[in-house]
Amino acid sequence: MDKLYVIKIGGNIIDDEEKLFVFLHHFSSIRERKILVHGGGKLATRMAEKLGIGQTLVEGRRITGAETLKIVTMVYAGYINKNIVAQLQAAGCNAIGLCGADANVILAHKRESTSIDYGFAGDVDAIDTAFLKNLVEQNISVVMSPITHNGKGQLLNTNADTIAQEIAKGLSNSFEVHLIYCFEKSGVLLNAADDSTVIRRLNVSDYKKFKEDKIILEGMIPKLDNAFAAIGAGVTEVVIGNAEILPQLINKMGGTSIVND
Amino acid sequence: MDKLYVIKIGGNIIDDEEKLFVFLHHFSSIRERKILVHGGGKLATRMAEKLGIGQTLVEGRRITGAETLKIVTMVYAGYINKNIVAQLQAAGCNAIGLCGADANVILAHKRESTSIDYGFAGDVDAIDTAFLKNLVEQNISVVMSPITHNGKGQLLNTNADTIAQEIAKGLSNSFEVHLIYCFEKSGVLLNAADDSTVIRRLNVSDYKKFKEDKIILEGMIPKLDNAFAAIGAGVTEVVIGNAEILPQLINKMGGTSIVND
Repeated sequence: MDKLYVIKIGGNIIDDEEKLFVFLHHFSSIRERKILVHGGGKLATRMAEKLGIGQTLVEGRRITGAETLKIVTMVYAGYINKNIVAQLQAAGCNAIGLCGADANVILAHKRESTSIDYGFAGDVDAIDTAFLKNLVEQNISVVMSPITHNGKGQLLNTNADTIAQEIAKGLSNSFEVHLIYCFEKSGVLLNAADDSTVIRRLNVSDYKKFKEDKIILEGMIPKLDNAFAAIGAGVTEVVIGNAEILPQLINKMGGTSIVND
Repeated sequence: MDKLYVIKIGGNIIDDEEKLFVFLHHFSSIRERKILVHGGGKLATRMAEKLGIGQTLVEGRRITGAETLKIVTMVYAGYINKNIVAQLQAAGCNAIGLCGADANVILAHKRESTSIDYGFAGDVDAIDTAFLKNLVEQNISVVMSPITHNGKGQLLNTNADTIAQEIAKGLSNSFEVHLIYCFEKSGVLLNAADDSTVIRRLNVSDYKKFKEDKIILEGMIPKLDNAFAAIGAGVTEVVIGNAEILPQLINKMGGTSIVND
């Protein structure tokens, strides 16, 4: 099977023009097939502020009201996505920017309100892996924005980590999938305050222990749950590390490798 | 050869939620292969106003400064494009939204400044017809936003009428292409004030005469030049008419047919 990299980046790189430029250069130079999943950044928040749209936070999570959905659709699926694609083309990497509604690539449903009304937040139901496979086999790198749809005309704001995990899992029947979560730290840390304490290899039993011992803290848990779910569902390798050292993450010289045993 | 419809819509339909809904329903029910090219609408202007970004108009044309480019990228390639795609999916029409940078579909160059500096306005150099052909042959309708790129990382704002013409011409070797320009009037009118005076059939020699006699006025000339250029370059048929009666335009029961003889 061919190798496929599914790489997720977040706001810390997207918000920094120079770092993004370097990252996209690194991404372009990966010779294997590849998919880039991007999150948002501060631009959506700044736009909302300028337009006077109030942001509701519940337990630290932003609620996607109708006006916020409009802004994230514009900023994520429009501005960020198309600028990344144009920069990749300039770097010699043929890319195509998609949201989940395009070619029905990601079908989701609106998260049900329990005690919290999440607004237009979408949870993934299905990935059209055949369409994605066809693109990457033409050596076209998919650039995926975190906007999905419910098939009934409603766009939905969806967690980019989850999208990366679902795409990686979905394509693991067709490719040897390597999933890389990029973020602002060097990896999963033994001491959250010290970037040199990267856990280079993390398996399920150590993960459980580290959670019990409060060594791995709350902010990392959804990301790691995503990573272990991917490994458990056929993804060959998951690496978590700093977007600024993408070549090292790919060559296993940096970051945290999530392993099954 | 299979029939292919290339249909262009502008702001008058995009800005009206109900009319857009009906139009997309009509578009979805076309059984042949189809591509939709959309322009912008008032949303970009309203966004610019709210954000306090001044609009420069030279000879009635908006100049695309750096901040305006940001907004049209967000609104055209993001909000409008993805909402159209989601609505088409809901209507049972598999669609994919693209800008020119995606898969390098439309390469353009920044219009050179003469007496006027047009800013980030792009003139089309090349269409990747093979990629578009591949999509429409999978029965995926392409929804094209009027944002292109120069291959060097710069996005550009491009006239949607021209994009529709270039796509129609480029695909005329592979399909029997029918190009439909939708706008707010019933067609090319003998009397601009009277919507019942549609010229049902317009050839080049009549067009010249009508221009000399000032029957066809300035606003219509770029659209008609585009239409005649398409017909002269292999497009089977060009129809100009009201987006609200798309089924009639397709069945040749309304609008103005542009013909070569």
